[in-house]
Amino acid sequence: MNRYAVIMAGGGGTRFWPLSRQTTPKQVLNISGNDVMINETIKRYDGIIPFEHSFIVTNQVQEKLIKDVLLEYVPHDNILVEPAARNTAPCIIYAALVLMKKYGDGVMCVFPSDHYITDGQGFTNILEKAAVLAEQTDKLITIGIKPTFPSTGYGYINFNKYKPYGEDVFEVLEFVEKPNFDKAKQYIASGNYLWNSGMFVWKVSVIIENFKRFLPRIYDRIREFTEFIGTDKEKEVLEQIYPTLQNISIDFGIMERSNEVLVIPGDFGWNDVGSWDALGAIFPPDENGNIVRADYVGVDTKNCIVYGSGRLIATVGLENMIIVNTDDALLVCPKDKAQDVKKIVDRLKEEKRTEYL
Amino acid sequence: MNRYAVIMAGGGGTRFWPLSRQTTPKQVLNISGNDVMINETIKRYDGIIPFEHSFIVTNQVQEKLIKDVLLEYVPHDNILVEPAARNTAPCIIYAALVLMKKYGDGVMCVFPSDHYITDGQGFTNILEKAAVLAEQTDKLITIGIKPTFPSTGYGYINFNKYKPYGEDVFEVLEFVEKPNFDKAKQYIASGNYLWNSGMFVWKVSVIIENFKRFLPRIYDRIREFTEFIGTDKEKEVLEQIYPTLQNISIDFGIMERSNEVLVIPGDFGWNDVGSWDALGAIFPPDENGNIVRADYVGVDTKNCIVYGSGRLIATVGLENMIIVNTDDALLVCPKDKAQDVKKIVDRLKEEKRTEYL
Repeated sequence: MNRYAVIMAGGGGTRFWPLSRQTTPKQVLNISGNDVMINETIKRYDGIIPFEHSFIVTNQVQEKLIKDVLLEYVPHDNILVEPAARNTAPCIIYAALVLMKKYGDGVMCVFPSDHYITDGQGFTNILEKAAVLAEQTDKLITIGIKPTFPSTGYGYINFNKYKPYGEDVFEVLEFVEKPNFDKAKQYIASGNYLWNSGMFVWKVSVIIENFKRFLPRIYDRIREFTEFIGTDKEKEVLEQIYPTLQNISIDFGIMERSNEVLVIPGDFGWNDVGSWDALGAIFPPDENGNIVRADYVGVDTKNCIVYGSGRLIATVGLENMIIVNTDDALLVCPKDKAQDVKKIVDRLKEEKRTEYL
Repeated sequence: MNRYAVIMAGGGGTRFWPLSRQTTPKQVLNISGNDVMINETIKRYDGIIPFEHSFIVTNQVQEKLIKDVLLEYVPHDNILVEPAARNTAPCIIYAALVLMKKYGDGVMCVFPSDHYITDGQGFTNILEKAAVLAEQTDKLITIGIKPTFPSTGYGYINFNKYKPYGEDVFEVLEFVEKPNFDKAKQYIASGNYLWNSGMFVWKVSVIIENFKRFLPRIYDRIREFTEFIGTDKEKEVLEQIYPTLQNISIDFGIMERSNEVLVIPGDFGWNDVGSWDALGAIFPPDENGNIVRADYVGVDTKNCIVYGSGRLIATVGLENMIIVNTDDALLVCPKDKAQDVKKIVDRLKEEKRTEYL
């Protein structure tokens, strides 16, 4: 069975401000120093899914940005442009219908475009297992991450330890939202919870069937689009239908409702790079615990993240601080407030300071 | 009696890095937003000392910088250039000998070039009183500052409350070095201590006599220079003599030894602007206690000092932090480490990063 990758690349990444902007969202940033995140996402499934079977779902603003950076192996025709932001469920059925029309059935692997994985080999082992399982069954398969600490920033997957599908494949009991710290500690202690990575593997036909069953309002509307795929009217029809689709996530719309979901636990250094403090998961700290990507002089400074452009950054007596200095803007905030960088972006929107958005 | 101002302008101001550099020391910076500090120092004695009687003692590196910014009322011939840095005692006898040779005796008022005073009228009242007292007596007069908190960053003057010279003039018992916090609290509680502002008023003839008595090694060497003042050989002779003079402060060399020292207490919002946290004494804080001189967006930020150039500065969840962003360098440090900015400059020297010095 052919395999296809669907990469969801519509996020704004406001929590990586001032590096991420509307014109430079996280997925087109080269945060690791190797390549932009979307290309790292593609390279990661080398040997498992052919590069030319990569499909990118993005929005009108980012279409050009992505074309500019995208690996040459991926045809630009494979960039699917959403006429409106409608969350992950519409995004996935859109891609599934295109795949079905163009290629017929196959295995569809869905990836966020802007996550980071340190152990590439560990990842491909799990992905191969998931793809084979999707071929062999009609299950919805997700890759869960073995938690390394009681994170309150990730959703969790509660699984059944009974193993009818072989070693390291489990039935999902429940998807749970981001917990508070006490809940998160209980989840970790129980051993029955994994982090929800947002990576899904299933047959194209299977996910379409699930939309018919669980999200019929979406399915009934967008199915009308199918006959126009590959025609001159494709774009026009999509622009009429898409904005009217229900705004709902695949997790909430399907994964949490179906009892045909399996999870394969992975342990390959995954990180959603959701905010600046995640840089600690990508780069090794120096002897003072600092992560430095800048021209930097530090005195009595510990456990900081220092990210700069050409100009010198100097600190004295700092601890657990994030400093990001770009060509036009500077951010300073404590690590434990990294999530609140979004508030700065909100303020800039209020003040209509579009040059910084 | 004529009055003369001698302004000591040789300091490097490393604690105001990255704004202050060798090529932009504190005295030529416009920190207040009104004028550069050396000109603010001059304007402050308007009506008490004629501007054209201003003498600036500086070094070879800063001579041109000062000429470039100096108020037009001050003749460039009044800039005295030290061939070497020898602390304040040689600086003062050099100026005194030049004044005596050119004008004969008079009242000499010595000021640091880079301090800040909020209440100009309060200052001139005290300065006038000191100048009159210097005319009428042969005392060494200093202006002491009524302490507003137990500072460990200033030297103190212990005075005798007996008032043989009239209201608000006191005999000095002792000059004391920067104390620790407990000592400073005792000083404040006693009511017998003032901050040492480094401002001195005396007759030219009187300070020369004091050099003869207390610093004869300096006096005997530099007196040879006197006959060359105003001749073609002035510079050449000074360059031979000056570097051989003892490196000693006027406080240690004369003020602490003489028992002919009077102090007039002042309460005019004086601040030596010794480090970035002193900006709080110059600018009023906003409703969150922040002192902002920058294009700034702050979320949940309190009691910070934010000083920028053209680029945006954004902070979340910060407290008591100093952020200074110049065109080529950024400083971030907690307020209570403001004195340690010097350590960054030291590090840059070690690393020979002269572009930032």
